[in-house]
Amino acid sequence: MRMYDLILKKKEGRALSKEEIDWMIHGYTHGDIPDYQMSAMTMAICFQGMDERETGDLTLAMRDSGDINDLSDIPGIKLDKHSTGGVGDKTSIALLPLVSSLGVKLAKMSGRGLGHTGGTIDKLESIPGFQTSMSREAFFRQVQDIGLALVGQTADLAPADKKLYALRDVTATVDQLSLIASSIMSKKLAAGADAIVLDVKSGSGAFMKTEEDAKALARAMVSIGHHAGKKICAVISNMDQPLGLAVGNALEVKEAIDTLKGKGPRDFTELVLALGSRMLVLAGLAEDTAAAESSLREAISDGRALDQLKRFITAQGGDARCVDEPELFGVAKYRTELKAAESGYVQKIDCSEVGLSSLMLGAGREKLEDKIDPLAGIILRKKVGDRVEAGECLAELYYNDEDRREAALKRLEAAYHIGPGETGSQSVILDEVN
Amino acid sequence: MRMYDLILKKKEGRALSKEEIDWMIHGYTHGDIPDYQMSAMTMAICFQGMDERETGDLTLAMRDSGDINDLSDIPGIKLDKHSTGGVGDKTSIALLPLVSSLGVKLAKMSGRGLGHTGGTIDKLESIPGFQTSMSREAFFRQVQDIGLALVGQTADLAPADKKLYALRDVTATVDQLSLIASSIMSKKLAAGADAIVLDVKSGSGAFMKTEEDAKALARAMVSIGHHAGKKICAVISNMDQPLGLAVGNALEVKEAIDTLKGKGPRDFTELVLALGSRMLVLAGLAEDTAAAESSLREAISDGRALDQLKRFITAQGGDARCVDEPELFGVAKYRTELKAAESGYVQKIDCSEVGLSSLMLGAGREKLEDKIDPLAGIILRKKVGDRVEAGECLAELYYNDEDRREAALKRLEAAYHIGPGETGSQSVILDEVN
Repeated sequence: MRMYDLILKKKEGRALSKEEIDWMIHGYTHGDIPDYQMSAMTMAICFQGMDERETGDLTLAMRDSGDINDLSDIPGIKLDKHSTGGVGDKTSIALLPLVSSLGVKLAKMSGRGLGHTGGTIDKLESIPGFQTSMSREAFFRQVQDIGLALVGQTADLAPADKKLYALRDVTATVDQLSLIASSIMSKKLAAGADAIVLDVKSGSGAFMKTEEDAKALARAMVSIGHHAGKKICAVISNMDQPLGLAVGNALEVKEAIDTLKGKGPRDFTELVLALGSRMLVLAGLAEDTAAAESSLREAISDGRALDQLKRFITAQGGDARCVDEPELFGVAKYRTELKAAESGYVQKIDCSEVGLSSLMLGAGREKLEDKIDPLAGIILRKKVGDRVEAGECLAELYYNDEDRREAALKRLEAAYHIGPGETGSQSVILDEVN
Repeated sequence: MRMYDLILKKKEGRALSKEEIDWMIHGYTHGDIPDYQMSAMTMAICFQGMDERETGDLTLAMRDSGDINDLSDIPGIKLDKHSTGGVGDKTSIALLPLVSSLGVKLAKMSGRGLGHTGGTIDKLESIPGFQTSMSREAFFRQVQDIGLALVGQTADLAPADKKLYALRDVTATVDQLSLIASSIMSKKLAAGADAIVLDVKSGSGAFMKTEEDAKALARAMVSIGHHAGKKICAVISNMDQPLGLAVGNALEVKEAIDTLKGKGPRDFTELVLALGSRMLVLAGLAEDTAAAESSLREAISDGRALDQLKRFITAQGGDARCVDEPELFGVAKYRTELKAAESGYVQKIDCSEVGLSSLMLGAGREKLEDKIDPLAGIILRKKVGDRVEAGECLAELYYNDEDRREAALKRLEAAYHIGPGETGSQSVILDEVN
């Protein structure tokens, strides 16, 4: 086989066979196929696409390029959840304790990543004492003991994807549906769960800007999951404004805790219930999503979810008292309010401006070696559709470095669009794909 | 400027500015832009194309990446000629002495290259004593003295094209019109002539398989020439069967000599006159192609062309007696005839089979370090449209190594298609672009 012939084949719009895809991914991972041929291939894919079978085969080839977690020692169906990411997305922190309080087994690997706040791992590490590294044995034991464990990704999962993504990132070939879907799914499949619930974000703050694109990505990923013999479904959720009210690591954990106390923001609670109910159904623990949702609401109202969160924190070395005593998180040195310049209704909150503002306050990292300030961040006091009077507080900024104030405030100011027309609030669940 | 943004721009179908193209070619030539970004760009160009202005700018940027020949010390208009290549193409060897005998100034650089026979340089070196390397001073002096000199390409012409072509060659991005046209023209422009006549081949034995594609390439190259302020025109010529009768280095030189004696094959003579008359017109030495053609025919019939060939050979150290005594070229040890298996008319002669047969006999090279056998090759005795009887000679094979006979004969046999229907002969000049 010659890579030249494969590039030509794809350039001419023909489908690559499973053997060709396997050979190509193996050769690329091992350095036998040079970057300059692979980038010509990914550009050709951007124009000619890949069909469902090719996309599935590409995903499996990348999955098989490194370690695959074997979770078979843990009895029962193991679930996983993935979000395509957005601003204020603290979903896992509330969702995982909630569904595992009802018997769902979760052996979760998570990353740090770059962005306006840290990843789930960074957020959890804002809990005093919380650890995210443990041995494989301790990880398995914890899942068996309490049904939930979360570690930083240590295994060499889907190295082909890592190499290919880095190449796509510098050759303007990131935004192709099959490549996006196979990249996400190769890692999810290597992580070893039996069933996966996907949260595909749609809107100005998401990678997929339109509902149509988000749905296409969801369909592609669900198809890959089926191709790999997994139970899988996807929820399309709104990311036209930040999710919930908190943006920033400790601030988001506190909001997740509030949500498990039944006092979370409406949109965030709705999303947690939508994802959680689908996880219960896939795990075979509920007949349908309606039944699942009432179980989840019960677990919140009777405190089981909160107890499970405490067990989870304690098992990972954290101080579970912070659940009832949020002051244990500490508080940022400075607080500033963004005030409305005019009266009206919030028409729009630009996610990327909020994200940049949060990053400027110290809540995120631009480079992997940057340090996150766990206490920095933003609390939105008004969301889209809210009535606001001139001079009223739109949002609060928290930070430990006064120099960061001015620029962050300016960004946040630019995020809010106030106008005279009533807008009505946005719904968070837009659609689903099964 | 970032290469990422340029790739994205082209991927989205937008035109690159002159500044962007200059920056990109300069950066690529100097190693600042990696191969993997450039191959993503060339693949994007394959799908989105380049407009005339972009193609012109790309050509000039590549022209300017290395040396540019300065021919201004030679008085008068300097002409150049380029052929896109085919089987049996010995055009330059007859054409250059012919037009220079009428006053056209030709300071020609030529290459060796790979293929079924050598390049023009290799062909000329089959003349005993003929040299193709000389100092810049000797080269200029010879052009001034006799109007014609030819050297192997020594200067560092268009190194950006060299690097880019090598990349395209391994990433399946060779066959894009703007990239092909700019590659050829960047070298032609760097070679420094004031006016250029192009011979764009069309047919099964050419890079451009259809007349339409050949014409599109011709138009692109003529447009680039105008963009660069040159006088330029193109002839589209037939390469559905080999040009003339001879394929092989010394065999082709002898056919070129015969043609300057007025005894050349009809198709080859026609092409030489078509290209030559356009060169005379561009040089301002004839009113129109009809007048030019009768001047050329005169120069052949009164011996001026042949005298000029002798002067040219002598000036470059060769033995000009071989013009009148072809036995001085020597002769291959072995000769075999391909005989017709059936009676009928020649329907088709497959160029690539003839080329491969010639290569097998030793007339060409597969790798740059291969040695060419100047005496090996093929003489076609029948061409498309000719009547042939079973057992009659179709072609003669010449070779010095008996082991090469069998495979070469088989190839040549496969080249000839004989059938009952009268076909009529093919015309060699298909069209022109000014």
